[in-house]
Amino acid sequence: MSGTSHVPQAGGGDGQMPITAADVAAQVGGRLVGAPDVVVRGIAPLDRAGDNDLSILSHLRYASWFATSRAGVVLVAPALEAQPGTPSTRIIVEKPMDALVGLLAHFHRPEPRAIGVHPTAVVAPTARLGDGVTLDAHAVVGEGAVLGDRCWIGAGASVGAGSVLGNDVRLHSNAVVYPFTELGDRVVLHAGAQVGREGFGFVPRPTGVVRIPHVGRCVLEHDVEVGANSCVDRGSVDDTVIGAGTKIDNLVQIAHNVRVGRFCFFASLTGVAGSTRIEDGVQVGGQAGLGGHLTVGARATIAGRASVFGDVPAGETWSGYPARPHKEQLRTQAAVTKLARLLRPLELMVARFTANTDPVDSSSSGDAA
Amino acid sequence: MSGTSHVPQAGGGDGQMPITAADVAAQVGGRLVGAPDVVVRGIAPLDRAGDNDLSILSHLRYASWFATSRAGVVLVAPALEAQPGTPSTRIIVEKPMDALVGLLAHFHRPEPRAIGVHPTAVVAPTARLGDGVTLDAHAVVGEGAVLGDRCWIGAGASVGAGSVLGNDVRLHSNAVVYPFTELGDRVVLHAGAQVGREGFGFVPRPTGVVRIPHVGRCVLEHDVEVGANSCVDRGSVDDTVIGAGTKIDNLVQIAHNVRVGRFCFFASLTGVAGSTRIEDGVQVGGQAGLGGHLTVGARATIAGRASVFGDVPAGETWSGYPARPHKEQLRTQAAVTKLARLLRPLELMVARFTANTDPVDSSSSGDAA
Amino acid sequence: MSGTSHVPQAGGGDGQMPITAADVAAQVGGRLVGAPDVVVRGIAPLDRAGDNDLSILSHLRYASWFATSRAGVVLVAPALEAQPGTPSTRIIVEKPMDALVGLLAHFHRPEPRAIGVHPTAVVAPTARLGDGVTLDAHAVVGEGAVLGDRCWIGAGASVGAGSVLGNDVRLHSNAVVYPFTELGDRVVLHAGAQVGREGFGFVPRPTGVVRIPHVGRCVLEHDVEVGANSCVDRGSVDDTVIGAGTKIDNLVQIAHNVRVGRFCFFASLTGVAGSTRIEDGVQVGGQAGLGGHLTVGARATIAGRASVFGDVPAGETWSGYPARPHKEQLRTQAAVTKLARLLRPLELMVARFTANTDPVDSSSSGDAA
Repeated sequence: MSGTSHVPQAGGGDGQMPITAADVAAQVGGRLVGAPDVVVRGIAPLDRAGDNDLSILSHLRYASWFATSRAGVVLVAPALEAQPGTPSTRIIVEKPMDALVGLLAHFHRPEPRAIGVHPTAVVAPTARLGDGVTLDAHAVVGEGAVLGDRCWIGAGASVGAGSVLGNDVRLHSNAVVYPFTELGDRVVLHAGAQVGREGFGFVPRPTGVVRIPHVGRCVLEHDVEVGANSCVDRGSVDDTVIGAGTKIDNLVQIAHNVRVGRFCFFASLTGVAGSTRIEDGVQVGGQAGLGGHLTVGARATIAGRASVFGDVPAGETWSGYPARPHKEQLRTQAAVTKLARLLRPLELMVARFTANTDPVDSSSSGDAA
Repeated sequence: MSGTSHVPQAGGGDGQMPITAADVAAQVGGRLVGAPDVVVRGIAPLDRAGDNDLSILSHLRYASWFATSRAGVVLVAPALEAQPGTPSTRIIVEKPMDALVGLLAHFHRPEPRAIGVHPTAVVAPTARLGDGVTLDAHAVVGEGAVLGDRCWIGAGASVGAGSVLGNDVRLHSNAVVYPFTELGDRVVLHAGAQVGREGFGFVPRPTGVVRIPHVGRCVLEHDVEVGANSCVDRGSVDDTVIGAGTKIDNLVQIAHNVRVGRFCFFASLTGVAGSTRIEDGVQVGGQAGLGGHLTVGARATIAGRASVFGDVPAGETWSGYPARPHKEQLRTQAAVTKLARLLRPLELMVARFTANTDPVDSSSSGDAA
Repeated sequence: MSGTSHVPQAGGGDGQMPITAADVAAQVGGRLVGAPDVVVRGIAPLDRAGDNDLSILSHLRYASWFATSRAGVVLVAPALEAQPGTPSTRIIVEKPMDALVGLLAHFHRPEPRAIGVHPTAVVAPTARLGDGVTLDAHAVVGEGAVLGDRCWIGAGASVGAGSVLGNDVRLHSNAVVYPFTELGDRVVLHAGAQVGREGFGFVPRPTGVVRIPHVGRCVLEHDVEVGANSCVDRGSVDDTVIGAGTKIDNLVQIAHNVRVGRFCFFASLTGVAGSTRIEDGVQVGGQAGLGGHLTVGARATIAGRASVFGDVPAGETWSGYPARPHKEQLRTQAAVTKLARLLRPLELMVARFTANTDPVDSSSSGDAA
C-alpha cells in the first residue's frame, strides 16, 4: 500500500514497475514480433498510447486508431497480425483482451491511503475501531458503531449509530451507512451509496398516511460491493439481505425485505421491489425491473430492460415487457414485426371474411375506444 | 428521544420495552395458543428470530422457515394454525402482517439524537436556527438560511444559502438542499437526496449552448418525503412544487417546473420530465416514466415500468409502452401473444389471398426496409 | 459575484435590478398594453406572482391562473391578447416563453461565493490550487490533485488524489471526483455526482470473482456538465471520455470505456453500458438504455425510454423496445393495436382455413408452452 508521501500523476495506467515487450510476451504466452527490449510502463488505448504504453488491437473497428497509434507495444489478435499500422512491436496472442486483463494488476495504481484517523474525522466515544483503520477527512462514525480491522472510511462517508462493519470494509467518499446496518468482511460501498434506509412503506391512518416503522435489518454479507449512488433499504418486518459475493452496479435500488443470494450481479439502474427473493448466482442486466413479492430462481438471467412481473424459474433467461423466456420473447417480437407488415392484407381479408360469413361478435375482444 | 449516552446494539427490532405473549394477543385481538408469559423483546423474521422475538407466519411460502424457527412467539394466519413447526406459542390472528405492523412502533429503536450544533458543523453568521435544532457532524448551513424548530440536519448534509426550512425537517446524511429552496414542516430528505438544483435546460446561442438561468422555486410542502439519492430540480420560469404529504422513493427524478399534488406516491427510479402536472392522490409505480408537459389526473395510477407519453385522465390506471389504460394494455398483450402463435397460418392465408385476389397495395403499411 | 455579506431572501426570481414594463417591452420587442411604469423586480408563475413580478401567458391551459393572477406585468401570446384576467399590464409578444428566457439572466440571483479556502476544508500538502479558488466548508482535495484558476468546490465535495481540474470547474455539494480523474475547463458536477469510479467489471478466478483493475482514465472535456447523483465510471483498459460541451442530466449512468462525442445531451435516468461509442451531437431522452459495445452515429436522436440493442446510424431517430427507427416503431405500434382488435375474426379465419386446407405445420412458429 502506498504511503501518503506518494504523489500520483494524472492519467491512468502509469504503473511503477516497467517491464519489457519480451516480458509481456512471456507472461501472456504470445509471439513477439519486433523489438523485445521496448519498455512498457503503462496501459493505454491505441488513440492515446505513447512509446512506453501497451495497447491492444482485438477488433477491426479500431483499425483506424491502430494505423496511426504511437503505442510502444500492441497485443494483436492473430487475424489482425498483418494489419497496417505504425506500431512495429506486436505480440500476437489468441485473446488480446483476456491477455491484457491479466496484466492490469501489474499496472494498476492504488489510491494513496494513510492509516489512522484524520483530525477532522468524528468518532463517537462509544464507537469501537479495529486495528489499522483509516478514517479520511470528515468521516463520521456514530454511537456504538463497530468497525473491524483495516476498514477504510472515505472522505465525508458516515457510519450510523449501532452499525457493525467486518474487516477490510471500504466506504468511498460520501457513502452512508444508516444506523443499525451490518456489513460483512471486505464489503465495498462506492461513493454516494446509501444502505440501511428505512424502506418505502406507509399505511393509511385516520390522521393521514404514516410511515411503517422498520425493525428489520439491512445485512450485506462478505464481499458484497454496492455501486455509486445505489441504495439498499433495511427491512420492515423481515430483513433485507444481500448474499456473499454479490456485486451491485451504480444507481441500483434494492427495496425493503428483499433477499438476494450469493454471487449475484445487478447492472446499473436496476430496481428490485419489496420482499422479492433472488436466489444464488442470478445475473440482472441494466435497467431491469423486478416487481415485489417474486422469486427469481438460482442462476437465472434477467436481460437488460426486462420488466419482471412474475416468478422466474431457476436457470432461465427472461427478457422484455412483460418479461418472458428470452427465446419466446424474440419469437414474439419477430412475429409482431412480420404481422405489422401483413396488416393491410389481413384487414382486407377480415373485411371480406366478415362480409361473407355469419356476423362475428367482436365485442369480447374488440376495443371500441 | 434517546440521549447520546444510549449505546445501541446491532440488529433491528430489539426494542427496550418487553411485553408478554398475552399482551401481544390482547393488543392484536388474536387467540393465544401456548405459553402466555413468553417475553417478547423484539421482532424478527422466522429464520433469524430467537426466544424473545415475535415473528409471523402469513403464507405457506415461509413454511420451511417456520418448521425450524426459534421464534418465541409467532402471529399465525388462521389457515396455517396447525402448520408443523417448532414455535409452540402462537397467536392466531386474521391478518398477521397488519397485526405486526400495528406493533412495530412499540419495538422500533430510534436513531440517537443529540440536540444542538456539533462543533464541526458550519453555520453562516446570517443563518437563523429555530429552537431544539440538531446539526450533526460536518453539517453546513449557508448564508441567510432559516431553519424552523427541531430541524435535524444529518452528518455532512448541507442547506444552501437563502433556503427556508419549516419545523421538524429531517435531512439525513449528505442530503443537499440547494440555495433558495423552500421546505415545509416535517419534510424528510433521505441520504444523498438533492433538491433545488437548476434544471436541465439549455438554449442554443451563437457561441454555443448556454444554460437557462433558473429563477423558479423548488418548494416541498408539509410532510413531503424524498428518498435516498432522489432529485427534485427547481423551476426555470415556473416553480417546481411537491404537494403536501407526497412521498417519493429512492432514485427518483422530478424535473423543473413539475407540479405534483398532495398525497401522491412515486416508487423508485421513476422520472417525471419538465412542466408535467400531477394532480392529488396519484400513485406511480417503480421505473415509470412520465414525459414532459403532460397532465395526470387526480387519483390516477401509473403502473410500474409504464411509459406515459400523453395525458392520463383522473382515476384511471395506465400501464405499458406506450402507456394506455391497463385493461386495454392487458388485452393488447394477450392478443399479441395469440397472434404471434398464429403467424404461420396467417402468412399462408395472406399468400393464398393475395394470389387469388386483385393485387393488394401494401405499400402504405408495409415496410420494405 | 456577490460577496458573502449578501443575505439572500427565500423564493426565486427576485433580482436586484428592477426595470419597468416599458423596458421589458423594449427588450423583448413586444407591444405594451397598460401602464408603462409598472416596476418589475422578479419573475414568477401566474399563480404566485405579485405586483412586481413578470409572468407569461403562453397557452390556454393557464387561463384559470391568469383570470385571478396578481402579476404586475404579463407577456401574452397574440392569440390570447384578449383573454380575461386581472393583469392589466400586458406585453403582446410572438413567443412569450422565448422572450422570458431572454430576460432570465437579468433576474437570476447567483449563489453567494466566498473566494478562498474555508477553514474546515482539507487540502493535501501536495495538492496545487490555482488563483481565485473557492473551497467551501468540508471540501477535500487529495494528494497531488491540481485545481485550475477560479475552481469552486462546494461543501463536502471531494477531489481525489491525482485528479486534474481545469479552470472554472464547479463541484456542487458532495460531488465526488475519484482519484486520477481529469476535468476540463468549466466542467460542472452537480450535487452527489460521482465521476471516475472503477467500473463494473469482474472476471472469474479459481478463488472466486475478482475485480478487473481499471487503468483507463475518466476524462470530462471542457464545458461538460454532469447532473445530480449521476455517475461516470473510469475505463478499464480504454478511457471513458465525455466530449466537450456535452450535458448530462440527473441520475444518469455512463459505464467504463464509453466514449461520448461533443455537444451530446443525456436526459435523466439514462444508462449507457460499457464500451459504447456515441458520436457528436447525439441527443438521448430520459430513461433510455444503450447496450454495450454499440455505436450511435452523429446527430442521432434516441427517444425517451428507448432500449437500444444495436448500432444506430447517424442522424436517425430511434425509439421503443427494442429500439428501431421511430417511424417504423410508430407504424408497428399502430399495426399491433389494429391487429389486436382483429384478433377474434382472425382466429375464426385461421380455424376455418386450417380446417379447409392441408394440415399446417405450425410447430416452427407456434409456442407449445
